[in-house]
Order: sequence, then C-alpha cells, then structure tokens
Amino acid sequence: MFFTSDNASGAAPEILAAVTRANEGFARSYGADDIMARVTTQLRDTFEAPEAAVYLVATGTVANSLALAIHTQPWAAVFAHTEAHIATDECGAPEFYTNGAKLIGVDGAHGKMTPAGLAAALDRIGESGVHGVQRGMVSITNVTEAGTVYTPAEIAALTAVAKTKGLPCHLDGARFANALVATNATAAEMTWKSGIDVVSFGGTKNGCMGVEAVVIFNPAKAWEFELRRKRGGHLFSKHRFLSAQIEAYLQDGLWLRLARHANAMGARLAEGLASIDHVSQRHPVQANLMFPEWATGCHAKLQAAGAAYYDMPAPAGREGARLVTSWSTSAADVDQFLAALRA
Amino acid sequence: MFFTSDNASGAAPEILAAVTRANEGFARSYGADDIMARVTTQLRDTFEAPEAAVYLVATGTVANSLALAIHTQPWAAVFAHTEAHIATDECGAPEFYTNGAKLIGVDGAHGKMTPAGLAAALDRIGESGVHGVQRGMVSITNVTEAGTVYTPAEIAALTAVAKTKGLPCHLDGARFANALVATNATAAEMTWKSGIDVVSFGGTKNGCMGVEAVVIFNPAKAWEFELRRKRGGHLFSKHRFLSAQIEAYLQDGLWLRLARHANAMGARLAEGLASIDHVSQRHPVQANLMFPEWATGCHAKLQAAGAAYYDMPAPAGREGARLVTSWSTSAADVDQFLAALRA
Amino acid sequence: MFFTSDNASGAAPEILAAVTRANEGFARSYGADDIMARVTTQLRDTFEAPEAAVYLVATGTVANSLALAIHTQPWAAVFAHTEAHIATDECGAPEFYTNGAKLIGVDGAHGKMTPAGLAAALDRIGESGVHGVQRGMVSITNVTEAGTVYTPAEIAALTAVAKTKGLPCHLDGARFANALVATNATAAEMTWKSGIDVVSFGGTKNGCMGVEAVVIFNPAKAWEFELRRKRGGHLFSKHRFLSAQIEAYLQDGLWLRLARHANAMGARLAEGLASIDHVSQRHPVQANLMFPEWATGCHAKLQAAGAAYYDMPAPAGREGARLVTSWSTSAADVDQFLAALRA
Amino acid sequence: MFFTSDNASGAAPEILAAVTRANEGFARSYGADDIMARVTTQLRDTFEAPEAAVYLVATGTVANSLALAIHTQPWAAVFAHTEAHIATDECGAPEFYTNGAKLIGVDGAHGKMTPAGLAAALDRIGESGVHGVQRGMVSITNVTEAGTVYTPAEIAALTAVAKTKGLPCHLDGARFANALVATNATAAEMTWKSGIDVVSFGGTKNGCMGVEAVVIFNPAKAWEFELRRKRGGHLFSKHRFLSAQIEAYLQDGLWLRLARHANAMGARLAEGLASIDHVSQRHPVQANLMFPEWATGCHAKLQAAGAAYYDMPAPAGREGARLVTSWSTSAADVDQFLAALRA
Repeated sequence: MFFTSDNASGAAPEILAAVTRANEGFARSYGADDIMARVTTQLRDTFEAPEAAVYLVATGTVANSLALAIHTQPWAAVFAHTEAHIATDECGAPEFYTNGAKLIGVDGAHGKMTPAGLAAALDRIGESGVHGVQRGMVSITNVTEAGTVYTPAEIAALTAVAKTKGLPCHLDGARFANALVATNATAAEMTWKSGIDVVSFGGTKNGCMGVEAVVIFNPAKAWEFELRRKRGGHLFSKHRFLSAQIEAYLQDGLWLRLARHANAMGARLAEGLASIDHVSQRHPVQANLMFPEWATGCHAKLQAAGAAYYDMPAPAGREGARLVTSWSTSAADVDQFLAALRA
Repeated sequence: MFFTSDNASGAAPEILAAVTRANEGFARSYGADDIMARVTTQLRDTFEAPEAAVYLVATGTVANSLALAIHTQPWAAVFAHTEAHIATDECGAPEFYTNGAKLIGVDGAHGKMTPAGLAAALDRIGESGVHGVQRGMVSITNVTEAGTVYTPAEIAALTAVAKTKGLPCHLDGARFANALVATNATAAEMTWKSGIDVVSFGGTKNGCMGVEAVVIFNPAKAWEFELRRKRGGHLFSKHRFLSAQIEAYLQDGLWLRLARHANAMGARLAEGLASIDHVSQRHPVQANLMFPEWATGCHAKLQAAGAAYYDMPAPAGREGARLVTSWSTSAADVDQFLAALRA
Repeated sequence: MFFTSDNASGAAPEILAAVTRANEGFARSYGADDIMARVTTQLRDTFEAPEAAVYLVATGTVANSLALAIHTQPWAAVFAHTEAHIATDECGAPEFYTNGAKLIGVDGAHGKMTPAGLAAALDRIGESGVHGVQRGMVSITNVTEAGTVYTPAEIAALTAVAKTKGLPCHLDGARFANALVATNATAAEMTWKSGIDVVSFGGTKNGCMGVEAVVIFNPAKAWEFELRRKRGGHLFSKHRFLSAQIEAYLQDGLWLRLARHANAMGARLAEGLASIDHVSQRHPVQANLMFPEWATGCHAKLQAAGAAYYDMPAPAGREGARLVTSWSTSAADVDQFLAALRA
Repeated sequence: MFFTSDNASGAAPEILAAVTRANEGFARSYGADDIMARVTTQLRDTFEAPEAAVYLVATGTVANSLALAIHTQPWAAVFAHTEAHIATDECGAPEFYTNGAKLIGVDGAHGKMTPAGLAAALDRIGESGVHGVQRGMVSITNVTEAGTVYTPAEIAALTAVAKTKGLPCHLDGARFANALVATNATAAEMTWKSGIDVVSFGGTKNGCMGVEAVVIFNPAKAWEFELRRKRGGHLFSKHRFLSAQIEAYLQDGLWLRLARHANAMGARLAEGLASIDHVSQRHPVQANLMFPEWATGCHAKLQAAGAAYYDMPAPAGREGARLVTSWSTSAADVDQFLAALRA
C-alpha cells in the first residue's frame, strides 16, 4: 500500500529488460550510441515533429531547468502556477540554470492557470522598462500538481495569451503520459499543435528507472541545449542506459499502457473514496494523484494498516493526504487501502 | 577492439544483477532508500572515515563540480594541472557550479603537478588583495589525464603545499580504483591520510552503469552539498538504482578486481607496444590508459582491422593515439590489436 | 514643478563644495583615501556602532544587492514586501548578486509588511527539506515604496519574527533620513536596536550626487563584502569623490536638515491636496512621496502648467499620480502645483 | 611625487566645472538627461560611428565586464594577454558578469599578444565539441599593462586572427587617449577600422572623476547592455553627473590634451631614467607608465625623498618599480624624482 509517489515504484519489466540488453558489448559514449539514433526517430514520430531536437537527461528537475534556460534570459521572468514544481520543489534549480531568472506565480483553482490570470500577470511584469525584469517564458504543468489535467484546448488558450507578448511556452510533462491518456489527445495535440515550444517528457514516474526526454520544437536551440546539459554535468558517458529506457518506453505503446493503468488505479481509488461519506476531494481527480480529506483519526488507522502516503494540511477536524498511484499499483493495494479506511 | 574509453564498456554483470534486484517493490525516494543506508556504511568503512558525508550522483562532471563548489567561493581560484579534466573537458561545469570561480592551470610533466610548481602558482595568485581572485582550493586527478599515477606520498607532498595557504584539497578519482591497485594503497592512504578533503570516487568508468560517490571528510559541508545537488538537478527520485550499483561495486572487492583487470590489460598492451620498435610512449604507463606514438600509416592499418580509439596529435612522420583498457577488455582484444599493428 | 522623483534633484551645495575640496592633489585609491577614514568614524558614530563595517557604493541597487548577497545563499529566499524596490525595480539585481536567490513577496497594506504576514510567509517556505529553497533573509524598506514609514517598534516586531527562524534582516534605507526625521528616531534605534543586521544608507536621493553607504553590524562579513563589491565593478578608483559626499552629508546634521525639508514639502503638498475635495490619497502621507488620485482631466491641466510627475493606474473616472518632494523642492513649486490643480 | 597610478590624481578643472554646471535644477534620471543626448552625439562623432550604441558607467571594471558579457556566452572563453587587467586585477568580475566564462591567457612579450600566439590559443580551445568551452571573444588592452602601445595595424592583425573563427573583439581602453596620442591614430582607426567591436573608453584615469564610456559598434546589443547594466547596479539615477564629465572630456579635445601631457611626462621621466646608468626598463616606454629597475637601495632613498609608487619584483641585486604619470603630473615632480634617484 505505497501511495507516497509514483517515483516510489521501480521500473517496468520491459524497461529493465531493455537496459539489460543494452549492456552488451561496447557502445559509443555521450549520446552517440546507436540506440539514441533510434530514439530520436521514435520521439520525432511520437510528436509528429520531424525537425525537433530531442535529448535525454536523468531527472525531471534538470529537464525543466534546461528547457527554461535555453529560452529565458537571466533578467527575464518565467510565469507558472504558484504551486508549480519548478517554483516550489526544485530548490531553485530554474534560477540556477537560467543564471537568476525570476519565477512569477500565477494563481488559479485546482493547480491550473487561467488565461485571464496569466494575462493579468503578464500585464504586471515587463512594463517598467529597464528597471523591471523582462517577460521571458510561460511554463505549464500537465498533469498539474493538484492532479488535474489541462485539455489541449486549455493549453492552447494559455499559449495564445503568451504569444500576444511573443513568449515561448514550456510544458512540464513529468506525468505527460498520464495527461495524454486522460484526455485522449495525441502528443502533438498536447504540445506544438497547442502552442508549446519545448516539452519535458517524463519517463521516470511512469515506469522508467530514471530518464526524461526534452523535446525542442525549434531546432535552432539544439546546440545551446547540448552545451548547457554538459555544463550542468548531465551528459551521461554511458548514455546507452538512458537511451534503452526510452526506446522500450515508447515501443508498442508501453508508455501509454503504463499510464492507463496508473490512471485506472487512480480512478478506482477515487471512486472508492467517493463512496465513503466523510471523505472529500480537494481537487477533481483526473489522473493518478489526488488530495482527499477525511475525518480525524484515519491517519492512525491507515498507518497501522501499513499504508504509506504524505499527510497534507487540512481544516480543523479533518486530515488531508496526497495519494499517488503508478504503473505498479495493484487493484488489491487500492482495495486494501479502502478497506482500511472504512474499517 | 574498442579502446576509445573505459566508458565505452557496459556494466559488469554483478552491477546489473544488483540493479535488477533493487527493482523489486516500492522504495523511498531521493536517497532515503534502504540500500543507501548500507552504502553509507560501506563507503565510510572503505575510507576508514566513520564521520564522512557520502553522496551519490550519476556523472563524474557533477561529482567534481559539487566537490569544488562546496569548498570554493565564486571569487576564488581552483589550482589544478593544466590538462585536468575539470579544466579542459567539462565545458566549464566547475565555473557554473561555483558561480564563476577561476581555474588556474599548473604545468607539470606527464600530467602531474609538482610541489614546486604548485607552490609557484599559489604565490602568483592571491597576493593582490581585493583586486585579484583569492586562493580557493587544489584539485588533484588520480589516475591523471596522462595515464600516470600519483602515490600517496606524492599527493601528501602536494596537499602539504596547499595547507601552507590553508587550502582544502580535492581528489578527482574518476579512475580511483585504478590508481589504488596501481599503488597498493588503501583508500584512506590515498585520500585523507594524505591531506585530501573531498573525493570524487568513480564508479562509471570501472564497470558501473552511471554512478559516482562524493566522499566529504568534513561533514559540516553535508547539508550544503545536498542543497547544491538538488539545485543542480542531480538528486535522483529513484535513487535506489544509484545505490544498488555502488553497493555491488564495493561488495567483496568487486571494484578492485575490475580495476586490476583493466590495469593488467593496460600492462599487457603496453608491454606488447614496447616490443614494437617504432612505437614509443608519450608518458609512463601506470594504469589503464596510454598515449603511444607510432610510424605514419598505422592508423589506416589498425582501423582497417577494426580497432577503435582516439587519434592524438603527433610530430611529423608519427601518429599519436590514446588507448584505454577497461574491466571488459579481453586479452584477445589486446593481442589482436598488437597483431594488427605488427602486421 | 518637478515631482517625478527625488533623484531628479541635483546635489546640495554643501555636497558639491565637498567634492570640489576633495579634488585637491593626489589621494590613495580604492577606498584608502584619508576622507574615508573619517567617514568610517562618522558612520560608526551616527549608528552608535563602533565595530560596524562601513562601505560606500554609488547606487542604491548595488547597496541593496550586496547587503543581501553577503547574508543569503543562492538556494535561499529573501522575504520582502511585494512592492519592494528590490523585487520590482532593480531588474533582478538581487538575483544576480546572490547567484540566484528567490524573492518571496509578502503582501501588506500601504507598502508595509505585518508580523503576521511575514510569519505566514516564513511558514510557507523552508519546510520541504532539500526540495524547496531555504529561508534566507528579511528585507524591510523604510520609507516604504508607498510613502509610509515604519516606526522602530514596527521594525522590531518584524525582525522578531525573522529571528524566530534565525534570519538576518536588511533595511533598505534609500530614504533612510526621511524615515528618521518622520519618526524622530535615532539611526541606532531604527536599525540594530530594532534587530537590523545591515543597512543600505541612502545619500543620492537626499542631496548627494551618487553615493550610498552600506553599514554592516556584523564585521565578520566585511571582507566578503569587499570582494563582492570589487567583483561587481563597484570599487571606485577615485574613491575620494564618494567619501567626500558622505562626509559632508553627515557633517553638522546636513542629511537630517535636507530630509526635514523634503518631508516638510511633502506635508505642505499633502495638506494642500487634502483641501481639494476631489483629491484622495491612496496611502497615508508620512514622508516625501505620495500617491494622490484626482478627477479625470487633471493630468492634462497639470502638464499644461508644466508639472512633471509619474502617472499611476487609477479606477475609472479617476487619475492617479506619484509625487515626490526632495531637498530642493521649493514651497513655491508646491503652491504652484496646487494652484494649477485647483484652477 | 605621486607615481602610484593615474587614478591617484583628481579631476581636471574643466571636468569639475562641468559637473558643477550640471548640478543646476532638475534633470531626468537614469540616462534620460539632456547632457547624455549630446554625449551620444559626441561619442558617435569621435568614433565616426553614427550607429554605435554608447553608454556610461562609473568604473573600468564594469565597462570591461559588460562589454564582454554582451558578446560572450557562459560556456565560452575570452582570450586575452596573460597579464590583462580583466584576467588579474578585477577579482573575477568578467566571470561574474558573463555567468562563468573562462579567461584564457595568451602570452606575449611586453604585454602584447602576437597574432601567432593568439592563433595558437584559438587552436587549443574549442576543438573538443561539447566537452570543452567554446571560443567566445578576444580582448585587447591598449595601452597594455606593460605600458606598451599597439598600433592600429597591430590591432588589425590580431582581430584578423579572431575573425577567422568569427569572434568579436573588445578593446580595453582604460588608457585609450594615451594610446591614441602615442600612435597619432584616430579613435576609429584604433577601433572599428581595425576590427574592434566594442570599446571600454576610459575617462577616470585621464582626468575625470569616475566615468567610462562603452562604445558598441553593433547596436543590436544595445538593449541587452542596458538590462545588464541595470542588473549590475550600474545605472545611475543622477546620471547627469556621469554625462557632464564625458561632455567636458570630449569638448575641444580636452581628453587628448590631458593624455598628451601624461605621455609627455612619461617620456620626460623615461628619458631621465635612461640617463642613469644603473637604471633599466623592463619594457619599452611608449605612454605614461613604465617599469624601471635600478640598483638595490634606491627604494629607501626615493621613499625618504617622498616618492610614492609601487614596488615590483626584480632579480637579485635589483629593485623594480611601476611608475605612472598622469594629466596632473608636473615636470617639477618628475625632475625632483630623478634628482632623488641620482642623489
């Protein structure tokens, strides 16, 4: 009953098998491996973007930071939801990689920016000439930190606002596959067809060991990305082990199958919770993470039963939690959790 | 016949097996995994340093950069051999992680600084008050970029010079195991007993998939290291896959066995080369990499035979090469290479 | 009728005379001039802080940035009012000088943080371990951007909150003298006696040509300040011209006389505005800057009469303005402005 | 007898008078003053560059650092003479402003790079793909740190080498006027006609209080310069006091008259020294600074006579000195110094 995070899961068997296969013999280092050549094609095909520059790194934090850094000057602002991972959970990595850009929080219910909210933030910043920081970029997270999902149309509405000021747009897709299967969108629809310029395409949370792709739709940024990645210490010498993960992840739709399972487990859990009368949800449940609240006393009961998850602040008389399902969550785990809560 | 680099090899079977075992079930993220607790003990035991702070990262570049950054202010200088990896092959990663410190090259034959050379460099820098950069740190690479090896006594002689100015000392041990077996020294003798304050303890080149430990003998630096690692995007969520590699690497002396093999293959290759009269070595061969020169025309012959390695500049009439052996180089590979060269 | 800013004024005659006197003969460079030795004593006396380290720079932006940088790590947060100059008007200079620290806005009416608001912000940040930025410092502006003034007791209440987390506190005193004469406090009461650790002590806006002092109550930070100042390009070779300004500024209470005049002109202007029935003030007027709103159409009238000031956003049917008086504003200017508005 | 540095002199009377005149009344802040509009024309005329972007700052360190920063990426190298001011005397300011670029020293006799030396350095750097720092920029100092002067032809020969790699070129003209009068060149000949892209045009050392212009021949860099200047805390609010200095400096050839005097005093001093048999010069004397060596014992004699200058290292039995003349050095000072040395 491990619901702390999707990163508490291991790797899917197909991923591990691919890594094992990749281990045979010698291979060129630093991204010149044969597997990466195939991965490049796979990613371009997946995103219907034959010109895109695509790269692999090992963590979501650096995928985001590099995606921002190649599009944002040090004296510019990145606009993102107040609760975005880049703003709250990366210890200032975006500031580090951009050499000091400023993150501007945009509020919005359920972890989602609204076009009006974004437009207001853009109006506040960048109007004081040389005295203020300049507008730099917009970053959108999908699945959001609140577990909600933007549709492609909602993303397009946000990027349209950004484009009125000529700003590039980033999609933090640490849970990209979960967002995709939740909306039945294609990767292209969720990204460049909706105005996105660069994507952090997550693999780690959805069954890989540790790999994220960065998909850059403007290939003019490719060389700068490579230099920044190396300079950040993120260019792997035995790069084949990153390549092998993504190759297997994209093959035969594994990534979408894993995400469908995670979301299905999320739905099963949410349904069960909805049937318990003292349980409420802070946000709509649309993918594989949720923020239920229940009557005080349940934490003790659940922990005694062996459930692991993060506590969240809650109003008096209530207890809050964050629950995350993953590719490896079983229906039995979910049912056992619900039973423990009902007990 | 792959002699381009030790990072062209895959992972040793024991490492891959450990990673596979580590994949079972759920695990705490971000370094709180059970394996890391055991690794901490292993590393402290290996270095006879029960108080040391030990951390894992995935690349040598960031291991070095973080080790320097926690000891060096932005306005300070890091003294290292002119040909050191941190100076020439990391695209300015040390400058990035230190927020702009300056690397000062110290010349020396065969990739090694001498105490006199270091002392002279220290005298040149740091004497102009607020106008010049301040003295920051000394970084020593062992095995050196030239394939030579410092003995613990030689390291102690360098750190003694550094200590006259109160400077901390870093050991870049990307090939630490190779240096150790070449000198029959213990890890403690090669490091803190010789005045080293922080070590980049390499795993990747010597049979791991991608993992390096940073061993910090002054635990007061531990929290700063953790923040800088996170901020650099180098804290792995599924950290168990780093931990598992190092656990297996250190278990039952695997790391030393692998290095002994690599060095033995290096010696076999060097011996064979020495028996060919037109072949010379630019530097003494003391570990698993070497820089031979031979008569013009051999490159074509070797490449035709399927040998892979890097060309190096050479005097007129000569051709230069860099050859590296690894844990996975076979005696047959070596002999085949020599035969091709003799042909 | 120039009310755009106190920096639109020139230098007071006493300041210019001092600069002229300082021009005689040769002088030691880079802060080793004889005048600076006297200024050090003056500043320590003024602040009743015989141990304080004191330095001169030429702009308020760098005074603030260096004061923050010596107390804030790159991975830390500076807490300041949402409208603070460091947050909105310095093009990210604090982020540049701290190598990427994050500014966290604290709301509060009339440009002032409240202890409760600050405490809430401190609670939100720094609780997520290595994943979030750490708490770094609190910065308080007096006179505030809204033209209001903190009393020493109000400052002490804020620093008391900061000290619960062990945080150092900065006072942005670009208009320090105006705040002092508005509250009848001493420099010591407004600063270290109220828990302030470092002060940007403004001279430029209050009758100097271009000079600010930084007063650091913890002299252990002195050498780092000197290195950061030099590295920022802010150590003047002909430093005597900075020293001479501050020496004259502090002599015989000139600084307080100039500020009293500026505040008196502010009061005269505010009183006059209060007597015009369609004029309101957005914030209490407590020093030398104010934010009146008046009926639509007045801008045109005032500009036709030759008044210069900044427009501010205002509700429909209203026009907003920022008016600033200075040491050189005359009563005639004020009266002429009021007459034009009444016309 | 003050020969420590040209920055030990005060301001020329014309400069001070201009500052005094500029003090009248109100003026727009932050570079929008009327004087700056005239200065822009003056500088463009002086450099025969009607499109150039021109800006003022207060120190040479920041003039250099900003000139480099707008042309150099963080992962690039700046090539300059090993003894260049930017490399040895600015506490890493170039590294700070470029966010971590690397300075590569180019040796050369008498403080001057040679085309062959520069070409060799360019060949060493930038050939290792993503692993090494990239080639960024070339910086040339005239007058050099050794007191020698490049002719326009010599500068053109260096920039021609830089252009083979597409690199922009910076001229550190802290003593630009002295170089100009030493060579009878025009400002245009010394700069853009010889391949220079950006100039630090010194005022401070040659009779100003504290002002340097940056002349950027590619106006596409203008806005970035403005943002970086503000972000560095170098945009003066009472900017008129910078403008006034440069206006007077350029008016009626004052700057060239002052430099001619400084160089003439340098020549008088050098001639006198040449007539003393135990005195030698380390470098040819071509402008207003020189590095004589004399018999041991002279330091004591000169200091007793009241001479001030910097000691320099010298061979056994010899003493070394750096002597600098300025616009305010008198012939009497020079003669008195020579007499003391002869005594």
